[in-house]
Amino acid sequence: MYFYTLKRMNIKLFITDIDGVWTDGGMYYDDTYNIELKKFNTSDSAGVLFLKLAGIKTAIITGEKSKSVQRRYLKLQMDELFMGVKNKVASADFIRKKHGLEWNEIAYIGDDINDILLLRKVGLSACPASAEDYIKKEVDWVLDKKGGEGVFREFVQKYLQEKNMLGNILELYLSTLEKESK
Amino acid sequence: MYFYTLKRMNIKLFITDIDGVWTDGGMYYDDTYNIELKKFNTSDSAGVLFLKLAGIKTAIITGEKSKSVQRRYLKLQMDELFMGVKNKVASADFIRKKHGLEWNEIAYIGDDINDILLLRKVGLSACPASAEDYIKKEVDWVLDKKGGEGVFREFVQKYLQEKNMLGNILELYLSTLEKESK
Amino acid sequence: MYFYTLKRMNIKLFITDIDGVWTDGGMYYDDTYNIELKKFNTSDSAGVLFLKLAGIKTAIITGEKSKSVQRRYLKLQMDELFMGVKNKVASADFIRKKHGLEWNEIAYIGDDINDILLLRKVGLSACPASAEDYIKKEVDWVLDKKGGEGVFREFVQKYLQEKNMLGNILELYLSTLEKESK
Amino acid sequence: MYFYTLKRMNIKLFITDIDGVWTDGGMYYDDTYNIELKKFNTSDSAGVLFLKLAGIKTAIITGEKSKSVQRRYLKLQMDELFMGVKNKVASADFIRKKHGLEWNEIAYIGDDINDILLLRKVGLSACPASAEDYIKKEVDWVLDKKGGEGVFREFVQKYLQEKNMLGNILELYLSTLEKESK
Repeated sequence: MYFYTLKRMNIKLFITDIDGVWTDGGMYYDDTYNIELKKFNTSDSAGVLFLKLAGIKTAIITGEKSKSVQRRYLKLQMDELFMGVKNKVASADFIRKKHGLEWNEIAYIGDDINDILLLRKVGLSACPASAEDYIKKEVDWVLDKKGGEGVFREFVQKYLQEKNMLGNILELYLSTLEKESK
Repeated sequence: MYFYTLKRMNIKLFITDIDGVWTDGGMYYDDTYNIELKKFNTSDSAGVLFLKLAGIKTAIITGEKSKSVQRRYLKLQMDELFMGVKNKVASADFIRKKHGLEWNEIAYIGDDINDILLLRKVGLSACPASAEDYIKKEVDWVLDKKGGEGVFREFVQKYLQEKNMLGNILELYLSTLEKESK
Repeated sequence: MYFYTLKRMNIKLFITDIDGVWTDGGMYYDDTYNIELKKFNTSDSAGVLFLKLAGIKTAIITGEKSKSVQRRYLKLQMDELFMGVKNKVASADFIRKKHGLEWNEIAYIGDDINDILLLRKVGLSACPASAEDYIKKEVDWVLDKKGGEGVFREFVQKYLQEKNMLGNILELYLSTLEKESK
Repeated sequence: MYFYTLKRMNIKLFITDIDGVWTDGGMYYDDTYNIELKKFNTSDSAGVLFLKLAGIKTAIITGEKSKSVQRRYLKLQMDELFMGVKNKVASADFIRKKHGLEWNEIAYIGDDINDILLLRKVGLSACPASAEDYIKKEVDWVLDKKGGEGVFREFVQKYLQEKNMLGNILELYLSTLEKESK
């Protein structure tokens, strides 16, 4: 875990886990049709939007393979998607090199044991309030929200707030909307 | 935000956002069939019913496009539905003119950044307890319930209560039922 | 509302509302296939079972029409099902006469305005903790659980407890199971 | 209930109930297609994984019959699955003999009346925080989490913690991952 002071931190890529972060860990299984649902929260989509307005890239790395995640990824027009991943550090390293980044320019949020190695690697790490204690002690920020409650957005907003950028991003968003209204 | 005293306020149209207000922001995605579910709360339907009994119109303006919202709109026989809206002020203005209303005769409840401009425009604005702080500071009323818990009904009841109309509306509803029983 | 002392009360039929009692009021709507889901709680099924062991009949009266309720009714082998009901007092009266009961031998749990007239009629009335204040003031018992959390079971258990019958019913259930084990 | 001191306890098989333990008791019923969903929590899958790393077997015994449970069982590659069970003691006894175990080498978590007899039989018994009081008084451990919140994992971790094995298991898991990264 490379932890510089926040003032000097300059994150250029946010990577996120899905189950337990964008969801509450719930997996809805059906009896007859092999339906499998995940519940996302529209609140997190604003997190992605804010990062775009700030010129910061976004990626998903998840251990599961599911079309629902792919649909979410496509809808939000994020930059990278890795599914069915056993070794999250390797996937993150691939993305890191592709985009020419240092580890300390990457932020990651995850909630479980298969996230620990990547949480230790990145410049800024976080987990939801719903994570186990042995995850919480590995991260820079234990957030207030649980998985599925919009904790990814909280992570993004907290970072933008610390960098004194959140107000500007919100203004930028509103002024774009206002221009469209005329 | 035109904010007159409540005594003098005379709302003739309630407009509502959907995701994060009628729902908790949840979007259920399936892996195989492209199923996408939203969870509504039957409690909010009483809000629409009370407004009808009070002779007040109802409209939905939402940034999403989904048949589930349309089905809800049709079932509750509301007055206007605008979906896939980027500029909520423009849609509200269209409805406003169609029904010959002033902005201060309109109430609106929304929960996120794309609601801010409309929240500032109407005569009475509200958001759920689950909204971000930068939304809460824009509205007249921060309600007690979160999105999906029946917060639209809470908004309606609070308005009718302030106008000393809630008791009458409930009596009116019960007397209609009692007549049907005979 | 006929309210005798509990010692003298002798309930022979439990009637229950569904939405907001057996569920949290949630209605899951899909975008593509017209799927509509309700979430029941297996905990309530023990309430029905206990009443059967106590020789007390059970009925559902609901304003909605949905096959999901019918499936639940059939699975639990309850005695009466009325769906799509506008006038709940009339439906309850029909059941009451069919089974040769007095109003004070009937218990009812409901959570909303269309339940008020029936709640006033029966011998023992209850609502979930999630009901509005103007419902709570109409009932004998405001229960601890919210709709969907097993509040029907809580209602049944509280009644059996007050009549000093709960321990016996649990023993009866266990002894049946033990016999089967041999 | 055979309750030895924890130091001397040596559990070789964890058996779990499903509804109310792996789920919050919720059963989602659809109106049109006979869809029936259960909501599982991915957090519990780590419990199964930890037991595998510790060389402890896992089994499901449930009163319901549903393909969703079967899919979960297959995905997690557990050892035994008994569905549609009336007499849980008999099923557990069958598994016990098949694997050549004593009752005090078996742990069981259940949440309702049809679990009581088996909870009394095993060496280590537990229930979720959401169970009724008359279940809680039957078990060795009343856990902190409710059904559906990952309470099976909590049960597993608490056992491994008491045996001073949890840290080792987590290390073992991480070292396997690290080897794969090279």
